[in-house]
Amino acid sequence: MQKLKVAILGATGAVGQRFIQLLEDHPWFQVAEVIGSSRSAGKRYGDAAHWVLDDNPPARINDMIVGALDDRIKSPLVFSALPKEAARLRELELAEAGHVVCTNASANRMLADVPLLLPEVNAEHVDLIGLQRKGRGWSSGALVANSNCTVMPVVMALKPLLKYGIRKLHLVSEQAVSGAGYPGVSSMDMIDNIIPYVPGDEDKMESESRKMLGSFTGDSIVNLTSIVSATCTRVPVLDGHLVNISLELDARPSLSDIIDDWETYQADSPVPDLPSAPDYPLQYLQQIDRPQPRRDRQAGAGMMTSIGRLRECPVLGYKFAALSHNTVRGAAGCSILNAELLAVKGYIEGFALAESVVALSK
Amino acid sequence: MQKLKVAILGATGAVGQRFIQLLEDHPWFQVAEVIGSSRSAGKRYGDAAHWVLDDNPPARINDMIVGALDDRIKSPLVFSALPKEAARLRELELAEAGHVVCTNASANRMLADVPLLLPEVNAEHVDLIGLQRKGRGWSSGALVANSNCTVMPVVMALKPLLKYGIRKLHLVSEQAVSGAGYPGVSSMDMIDNIIPYVPGDEDKMESESRKMLGSFTGDSIVNLTSIVSATCTRVPVLDGHLVNISLELDARPSLSDIIDDWETYQADSPVPDLPSAPDYPLQYLQQIDRPQPRRDRQAGAGMMTSIGRLRECPVLGYKFAALSHNTVRGAAGCSILNAELLAVKGYIEGFALAESVVALSK
Amino acid sequence: MQKLKVAILGATGAVGQRFIQLLEDHPWFQVAEVIGSSRSAGKRYGDAAHWVLDDNPPARINDMIVGALDDRIKSPLVFSALPKEAARLRELELAEAGHVVCTNASANRMLADVPLLLPEVNAEHVDLIGLQRKGRGWSSGALVANSNCTVMPVVMALKPLLKYGIRKLHLVSEQAVSGAGYPGVSSMDMIDNIIPYVPGDEDKMESESRKMLGSFTGDSIVNLTSIVSATCTRVPVLDGHLVNISLELDARPSLSDIIDDWETYQADSPVPDLPSAPDYPLQYLQQIDRPQPRRDRQAGAGMMTSIGRLRECPVLGYKFAALSHNTVRGAAGCSILNAELLAVKGYIEGFALAESVVALSK
Amino acid sequence: MQKLKVAILGATGAVGQRFIQLLEDHPWFQVAEVIGSSRSAGKRYGDAAHWVLDDNPPARINDMIVGALDDRIKSPLVFSALPKEAARLRELELAEAGHVVCTNASANRMLADVPLLLPEVNAEHVDLIGLQRKGRGWSSGALVANSNCTVMPVVMALKPLLKYGIRKLHLVSEQAVSGAGYPGVSSMDMIDNIIPYVPGDEDKMESESRKMLGSFTGDSIVNLTSIVSATCTRVPVLDGHLVNISLELDARPSLSDIIDDWETYQADSPVPDLPSAPDYPLQYLQQIDRPQPRRDRQAGAGMMTSIGRLRECPVLGYKFAALSHNTVRGAAGCSILNAELLAVKGYIEGFALAESVVALSK
Repeated sequence: MQKLKVAILGATGAVGQRFIQLLEDHPWFQVAEVIGSSRSAGKRYGDAAHWVLDDNPPARINDMIVGALDDRIKSPLVFSALPKEAARLRELELAEAGHVVCTNASANRMLADVPLLLPEVNAEHVDLIGLQRKGRGWSSGALVANSNCTVMPVVMALKPLLKYGIRKLHLVSEQAVSGAGYPGVSSMDMIDNIIPYVPGDEDKMESESRKMLGSFTGDSIVNLTSIVSATCTRVPVLDGHLVNISLELDARPSLSDIIDDWETYQADSPVPDLPSAPDYPLQYLQQIDRPQPRRDRQAGAGMMTSIGRLRECPVLGYKFAALSHNTVRGAAGCSILNAELLAVKGYIEGFALAESVVALSK
Repeated sequence: MQKLKVAILGATGAVGQRFIQLLEDHPWFQVAEVIGSSRSAGKRYGDAAHWVLDDNPPARINDMIVGALDDRIKSPLVFSALPKEAARLRELELAEAGHVVCTNASANRMLADVPLLLPEVNAEHVDLIGLQRKGRGWSSGALVANSNCTVMPVVMALKPLLKYGIRKLHLVSEQAVSGAGYPGVSSMDMIDNIIPYVPGDEDKMESESRKMLGSFTGDSIVNLTSIVSATCTRVPVLDGHLVNISLELDARPSLSDIIDDWETYQADSPVPDLPSAPDYPLQYLQQIDRPQPRRDRQAGAGMMTSIGRLRECPVLGYKFAALSHNTVRGAAGCSILNAELLAVKGYIEGFALAESVVALSK
Repeated sequence: MQKLKVAILGATGAVGQRFIQLLEDHPWFQVAEVIGSSRSAGKRYGDAAHWVLDDNPPARINDMIVGALDDRIKSPLVFSALPKEAARLRELELAEAGHVVCTNASANRMLADVPLLLPEVNAEHVDLIGLQRKGRGWSSGALVANSNCTVMPVVMALKPLLKYGIRKLHLVSEQAVSGAGYPGVSSMDMIDNIIPYVPGDEDKMESESRKMLGSFTGDSIVNLTSIVSATCTRVPVLDGHLVNISLELDARPSLSDIIDDWETYQADSPVPDLPSAPDYPLQYLQQIDRPQPRRDRQAGAGMMTSIGRLRECPVLGYKFAALSHNTVRGAAGCSILNAELLAVKGYIEGFALAESVVALSK
Repeated sequence: MQKLKVAILGATGAVGQRFIQLLEDHPWFQVAEVIGSSRSAGKRYGDAAHWVLDDNPPARINDMIVGALDDRIKSPLVFSALPKEAARLRELELAEAGHVVCTNASANRMLADVPLLLPEVNAEHVDLIGLQRKGRGWSSGALVANSNCTVMPVVMALKPLLKYGIRKLHLVSEQAVSGAGYPGVSSMDMIDNIIPYVPGDEDKMESESRKMLGSFTGDSIVNLTSIVSATCTRVPVLDGHLVNISLELDARPSLSDIIDDWETYQADSPVPDLPSAPDYPLQYLQQIDRPQPRRDRQAGAGMMTSIGRLRECPVLGYKFAALSHNTVRGAAGCSILNAELLAVKGYIEGFALAESVVALSK
């Protein structure tokens, strides 16, 4: 099988690097273009990028020349790790030009015709692309977004509980520094300290979770109507966002019912067979002091959400903690999984996958 | 003025050290006895104690010989930083023997006749001592406790809001490691990590806050009836507990009303004149990213509570963050302030303070 | 091939856990017995051990019952992660009883007939076992030690430079907290701090490095005669010891000669074919700000030593920094590699390995 | 006494903030002008500065309007916390215009006629100002620098040992993040990590220490001729640089001689009477695990250097560890102390200090 060529926008930044790391040895996709800012364009990737992940960039990528943002992109599939303002128009232009764009940027997430996709939660939202193409007059192009990195563990944990009717949701996050990109949070702000505020994230927690857990009617996404209150804080942790979740339900399931819902949850086929999908997207940890960012963020190669401490909440009924890796599951890894779903669903022109390929890819 | 001699139980531990540090140069009290475990008894304090605070112990204290827990105590005033089990009986014995005992241990906090005292919040609870003495047949002795270190910023922040009627309270803490004592939390658990559970603290948050904010009828403390839900987590911060507080009130004060309540709040005389009391126990910080543990824990020499981020909570009505220094305001500093109140109120036999002394002591 | 059964002494501690983690899926060895202290003996491993590594223990191990230290051991191969005092006699008893013991404990390291083995550095020291068995009257048993975790990156980096004649060696370490075991260093000592002293390690740096780099004459190990000065400090890092090394040589190789020596260094066969050995044990990093503990400790699955910043030292001639993972290469991983060498060299009775097995095992 | 008005250049940066903090309540000097970059100029200080120290800026300073770098300065005394390139010409211009400039910037430190002043070490260098004024044709202006923050604990500790003849000096630093300014080191580089390289500091350690410990002949500074080798590393500590120092001396003093030299060291009058000078600039700590950055950086209000672990070095003869607060003693505090010396020595025109004022100021 010929791998599909992909371009990475914002390839020298922290999330761009994570795309490169996760796509190395990907069974279907291959990085063919790395696109950076005007400061990086024209340089060897190895010279332009200050690699902030562990180890070093793959040698093959190091020798690639960084392209400029307004260069013509050749790859049919584009992953965007652009800053918000740079993303807004460029992503739409590329989709109009026929590219399938999977973006981690927040700029276009809340557009009514852009799926805010998390395959284990709302794979059916992918079909919004049909309306998107029709409405915008696009043929082969598409724009699909993934959510804010802190929303991810919340919607993953809530998906199996939707059937109980979620009335109210109270969220307090403890977020890792990598969520702010590089250089992001100064060490002078973070040593021996907490910052009780993360710009923009509280609003995103409230709006994006309602869109992602909403239902696709065939015409549009109907948002979940739950009342959501979010508080976002930053803690001295490298990777892994932990969210303390309290919620009020219409029904009164037992705690063991809920744990069972989580442990058995799987999305419908073909999601669990996608190369980047863990077999089960959720794990419930019995130890009373888990999940912990450092010890649990790598579960399922960083793609699982770990849950723990489910117990009664005197105020809202139920409470627990959920954690996922913010730059894998919460950013680059989710974009890649989204692209895998698009590929299987036939949304990437000229890249047909036999069912046998899907089954064997993991 | 002759200073009052005091004994410190558990003097070699982390909270014991904080007592020593805060009592150095105290205008009324002077450390005369340091009491430790059987491992420390008989040694020079400087040899027995592994000093964990900044700098070094005062030279005078270093040269004192550590006494044993069952030694006869000579000082009329006793501060207890004992571990829970060691505290339970010994504190009652000492009170029975005529000592005024101000304890930071949790063992006897919830006894019905023991005031859980925080002078700026419930100075009137001190008069429970009359009933305590009567009921237990004690003459000059008394036992007064201060609360868990995480409860402190909560009750301080809520006291001026009691008038609005607190229906529901939802608390998520981010607690410093010094709250666990020394050696306490292993660095292998804390580097690049959060522990989403603090043994025992969630229950204490719920029960102690209701007792402290309760009213003294003359016969007993009637607990606040608010519904309280607490989640306690541990973060890589040395000192300073931050609590994310959401609450539902009977009334609907404006946000600026509440900020005004906090900024103008003072306890009744003589509390603001006590040597360890800040002029105003609360400060509201306008910056959107405050309070922060490292930057705000020293406010008012560690005795103020800093509040920030007051805003509407879609689920409960109001939310904000509160912070105080857990081993100063939340432990040793509060015990000392309690003792100062007892002294002024005449509960320490033979230690009469002229009003002029009180006024001049700060 | 039937895997060789192994016992782990001190299996519930931090290094014991690393043995378990690294032996999961080992091609030759299989954990059959887990031995702990009297507090753990008789319990399920999953209940007795507070797992401090990432993720969770393997399910199979969790269900094993922890044996007591004086139980009869059945496995022919024993890995010891015992505390020093517990190790001293027990390791000798087990070797006398016929077991091959590979130990990480320091108790018996400096015994004249115990090889202090690091296969890439001194594989020929393994033949000291012949003298050991003869001198002690042991038949199938043997005791082989690995060095202190901070010595490891030093001797690895120096081995290819021995030919230049090492006159003087000046070492300043910055060590991770996991080197002190669990709970080890309190977070109250480590947040926002350095401890400029690590008990015992400076002496070990000086004595163990001379023994390891010494030569085996057939009769005994003749220590290297270089003058060594070591300073050991503890820093807020989880894993990975970095050592700043300055040295004076007899010869005057160029900097690029030395880098070339490092990059091309390989031990003689069969060492590079052992399952836990990296192809090349050393890597030289060109970036001026490397090696860094967090980014480089996992090189070669934690078994490579990373070197950087080679430059002239005005005082001693040459200086550079070396880093390796202290609980993998510096502890459990090295013990396992030692056992692999023993297996191939025929020192483990009844466990014959065809050459084809060795070649294929990696 | 009328306080002398001072201007702070670079007032919104981390070192500028430290100047403001330390000058609040200074007995002789008063901040009258705060100068910032073009981005800050014209704004209220409270709006322009992101305060990174503890607590909040003094209210009086918050309300001052930030001036631009090319504004005419009115204050006779100027403290410069400018970035290197901005400092180079501007500091000379201001001295030429008649201002006494005490700078923390590195740009002009190594100019032959600029004293690199540390009053306890080389107060006599101050008289280089006569040559400076003569050579440059300046009347009342002057330019005096303080050294790099890592050099400070080294020269302080070595000063009392100069009499033994320092042949060789081997330095390995472990530096706090505040040495890099704000935002400086990203938390993504610093959590669970060390960076074994600090740009520029190794050269400064070697050159600045020789100049500072050199002697003033009346015509020029004759540098110390000792051979110096420096390695600089960055660790996850907020404030306080620790340096591991090994040295070879001509003489062979005993360890207790050296400790005695340190403990009794005082600079000649008037230095110990200056308001910012500690009575004794050095303290030797007997505990084997000190000095530690967090516990010892505040000694002497951040102006003392703490030394510990003196012992024999097999390679060079002696070794020990020294620590001082890098933004107090190592930056703003030293500049202020320099200015105090200039004031007493009569180098600040129109600011005459009676001897009684000096004696009473501390």
